[in-house]
Amino acid sequence: MTAPAAGERVAVVEVGPRDGLQNESTLVETEAKIVMIEGLVDAGITRIEVTSFVNPRWIPPLADQADVARGIQRRAGVEYSALVPNLKGYENAAAAGMRAVALVVSASETHNRKNINAGVEDTLTRYAEVADRARREGVKLRGYVSTAFGCPYEGPVPVPRVVAVAERLLALGAHEVSLGDTIGVASPRQVGEMLQAVQAAVPLDRIALHLHDTRGTALANALAGLEAGVRVFDSSVGGMGGCPYAPGAAGNLATEDLVWMLQGMGLQTGIDVDKVAEVARAMGRLLGRVLPGKYSQAGPWQARPPAP
Amino acid sequence: MTAPAAGERVAVVEVGPRDGLQNESTLVETEAKIVMIEGLVDAGITRIEVTSFVNPRWIPPLADQADVARGIQRRAGVEYSALVPNLKGYENAAAAGMRAVALVVSASETHNRKNINAGVEDTLTRYAEVADRARREGVKLRGYVSTAFGCPYEGPVPVPRVVAVAERLLALGAHEVSLGDTIGVASPRQVGEMLQAVQAAVPLDRIALHLHDTRGTALANALAGLEAGVRVFDSSVGGMGGCPYAPGAAGNLATEDLVWMLQGMGLQTGIDVDKVAEVARAMGRLLGRVLPGKYSQAGPWQARPPAP
Repeated sequence: MTAPAAGERVAVVEVGPRDGLQNESTLVETEAKIVMIEGLVDAGITRIEVTSFVNPRWIPPLADQADVARGIQRRAGVEYSALVPNLKGYENAAAAGMRAVALVVSASETHNRKNINAGVEDTLTRYAEVADRARREGVKLRGYVSTAFGCPYEGPVPVPRVVAVAERLLALGAHEVSLGDTIGVASPRQVGEMLQAVQAAVPLDRIALHLHDTRGTALANALAGLEAGVRVFDSSVGGMGGCPYAPGAAGNLATEDLVWMLQGMGLQTGIDVDKVAEVARAMGRLLGRVLPGKYSQAGPWQARPPAP
Repeated sequence: MTAPAAGERVAVVEVGPRDGLQNESTLVETEAKIVMIEGLVDAGITRIEVTSFVNPRWIPPLADQADVARGIQRRAGVEYSALVPNLKGYENAAAAGMRAVALVVSASETHNRKNINAGVEDTLTRYAEVADRARREGVKLRGYVSTAFGCPYEGPVPVPRVVAVAERLLALGAHEVSLGDTIGVASPRQVGEMLQAVQAAVPLDRIALHLHDTRGTALANALAGLEAGVRVFDSSVGGMGGCPYAPGAAGNLATEDLVWMLQGMGLQTGIDVDKVAEVARAMGRLLGRVLPGKYSQAGPWQARPPAP
């Protein structure tokens, strides 16, 4: 256990514009996406995944990927990244000015085939080409391991499998690998045990957690991750997103709730939780529903004097 | 730290029928409340707070207190309790067949005055009479410390104040005291620190946590409580309830999410999470909104074979 000391820094990687929106059924205008991204950066977010360079036919909500990438006003000190599924995606991302990309592979074979239409081994081979180009072109690489805590098709996923896939991504040149609880089935105990196993092979400062709140445990799992030594967490403003395997279910861990908890624990994120909450409420209006993030619904804690 | 071992038992105290419904604006029929309570007991709940014997003028949603208390089919091995604000409430509860009652006092003076219309000291004096009667009549007594982690009027609440109020309730004869994060502002670190301070004065097996999810941290705070040695948690089916100080905000920790997490950690609750989720969905239909509990929206994790 390496519970964080007060004042320690914790990094938040905002994935709402990509992982959140790709699972929302309501289309959001490109301009609104740009406003959201810039609003989040204004709030202090310094790492943000802005879109995915997938084939727009597969994920229509992100069909404006290049326009988003080109439209955002880049700010110094902020890392803007995009998911890329293959070399073509990488090339499109690079052409649109992206200097950081992320690759995703599942820990479970079946989910990878359903998600990427290729086996895990073939996917990693294909990624080697992308990684090679990224290295030569000085583009930063991040890896995701999906279904690290459970697969909608295969059920439990063996821990050594997760460790092996994470190691492969790091070997490709990823500076960091984010372990995804894609369908929101992890328990805090499982998170702790997983990180203990991972730590034997990979230093934890290269591991992030990507948690979904499908069954309400995302923030508790983040706490377990913190206590085990992880200091990088992915989250989505407002808890945008959903779960294709559980229609109507909640999406990613909400950025504002994560930041509020970290701040309450005396940890430093550099993020203004109330500005994130403002963006969350604005996105809720655009999407026509109250987003699941709680802090943005409750607002700050302001002690009020009693009525006379 | 006394993190629970796998297989250890954790008790869940269902407070939805009281703390949940008293903060819901939609009135629920008495018969529907009885169906809910019996459904929760069917699901394996063995401790349940069924209503509050307050003056119906103050809390109209619970005006049918006596009818609920009399209407439920009691099952052996299940503890049905009710909140009582004073001797008159106690007498009404006892007359309606309640064999367990709970007393609530705030850790902060101002909240207590707003909530109970009396100072903390006067409230405890008044409770001594109730406690005396309960002892003589063999009625089980539980205590709540409200605003233990923060007050909507006074802000932070000194830890020694919380410990002192908890000790007073135990001295009155309460078998257990539940520390309430009434407005949902606690952080996991604060929970851990509070329990460490409490433990110096009171054995933790007489302490429960009553967490609200106003800002999304209820389950993470429960995890911190578990790790610190608490084994009794209050929760509300579906996360029913709200917060009078944050209109539109989430209510209590949702029973189904708590049970799902505990079960995922290999802990025993004796509760069937899917049956709780069914009750949560039924209550959502009655209240005309999707309740905040996540597990009841997502449903169980069923690994599905891939499409051919």
